[in-house]
Amino acid sequence: MSSARSRGVLPRGSAPDREAVLDLYTFWLSSAAYRVRIALNLKGLDANHHVMVLRKGDQSTPEYRKLNPQELVPTLVDGGSVLTQSLAILEYLDETHPDPPFLPTEARDRALVRSHALTVACDIHPLNNLRVLLYLEKKMGRGKDEVDAWYRHWVEKGLNALEDSVAASGRAGKCLFGDTPTVADICLAPQLYNARRFGCDLSACPTLTRVDGHCMALDAFARAAPEAQPEAV
Amino acid sequence: MSSARSRGVLPRGSAPDREAVLDLYTFWLSSAAYRVRIALNLKGLDANHHVMVLRKGDQSTPEYRKLNPQELVPTLVDGGSVLTQSLAILEYLDETHPDPPFLPTEARDRALVRSHALTVACDIHPLNNLRVLLYLEKKMGRGKDEVDAWYRHWVEKGLNALEDSVAASGRAGKCLFGDTPTVADICLAPQLYNARRFGCDLSACPTLTRVDGHCMALDAFARAAPEAQPEAV
Repeated sequence: MSSARSRGVLPRGSAPDREAVLDLYTFWLSSAAYRVRIALNLKGLDANHHVMVLRKGDQSTPEYRKLNPQELVPTLVDGGSVLTQSLAILEYLDETHPDPPFLPTEARDRALVRSHALTVACDIHPLNNLRVLLYLEKKMGRGKDEVDAWYRHWVEKGLNALEDSVAASGRAGKCLFGDTPTVADICLAPQLYNARRFGCDLSACPTLTRVDGHCMALDAFARAAPEAQPEAV
Repeated sequence: MSSARSRGVLPRGSAPDREAVLDLYTFWLSSAAYRVRIALNLKGLDANHHVMVLRKGDQSTPEYRKLNPQELVPTLVDGGSVLTQSLAILEYLDETHPDPPFLPTEARDRALVRSHALTVACDIHPLNNLRVLLYLEKKMGRGKDEVDAWYRHWVEKGLNALEDSVAASGRAGKCLFGDTPTVADICLAPQLYNARRFGCDLSACPTLTRVDGHCMALDAFARAAPEAQPEAV
């Protein structure tokens, strides 16, 4: 793994503080790491980026497995705390740095926003992770067309259902819930990036694409984008 | 869909109250519904059970799609609130009925517990959902041996990593974190049920199987088990 100073801003109004520095194990094409990059930017937090080149197997070294036995990115290290699973990291950042909030205040609204996020994080993304595509290709011997069809199937099915859920909620504004980014938007933008990369049909998702357009115009999202990472090739 | 009064107990100390009755759309073999059944029992909440027979397609009727555009179970209806995605429902129940708590109090501990839960909910379960197995079988034409190998691969890889994470945390007690059930245990028990059903190798998971044994001896877990549901065949 290589290390590069992120371009994330420092905590507002504070000078560089060795204790406060976070370490993020990330990769430009990892959708889950992309979520955490957005979240850190929204909270105005700085992090050292440690680049894990997944196709090279950086995530499977004994050194990294001690941090993350799942051999996945991202991992966020905050002092003595090793944090894994992107949604758990988003909730942690929201609890430790409440401003700006990633969730609404009412329990039913929080459940709605979390449900949107989990639709992406549980029912779309895990089916299209690199390790899953490699299993279909290498262990099941499926060709590129079949693997791509699998990818598009789950993305389109999942996003179309998310579009319907968001529309049915009647709570979307500039973002999926109201006008400021929540964990739902933080999950949406990386998923739409992946969807476009694989040529998925987004024609049934006008709300999602509109919200994504709004978010990606925000500095915190734009700086977290894959192509904005120093390791992007 | 058929409706059956659940055997969940009523909120402690309260008389039956029409406003307080919850509606759970569930199926005995759904691992995500199993999580919510455990959670309701732990919180001492009653719910009307609406049984969705997944292989018959109850989840794809226009009536149910209005509640859950993802066509998945569970859905929990609490008054005017329609709640989807099991982990969002667990957080909602914990926020609206804080006793007993499903999460520790410290942010770093909450992140650890959520990470354990998400390891199951994002990186094991979604790969082995019925709809995914049907895709492999029907659309990709894979045989039973290949589908079973797929199932076991993701369960064993995921649970072995979870075992390592739990051991590395040094925080397991009778449960995955301390001695009382958290969202992590609520996700673990249904996943181990599925793992055993498909003959997965759990020999590398002594902590997980020990914790599961403890939890399944608790009334709230036992009453939520698939075979304890009236619709079990």
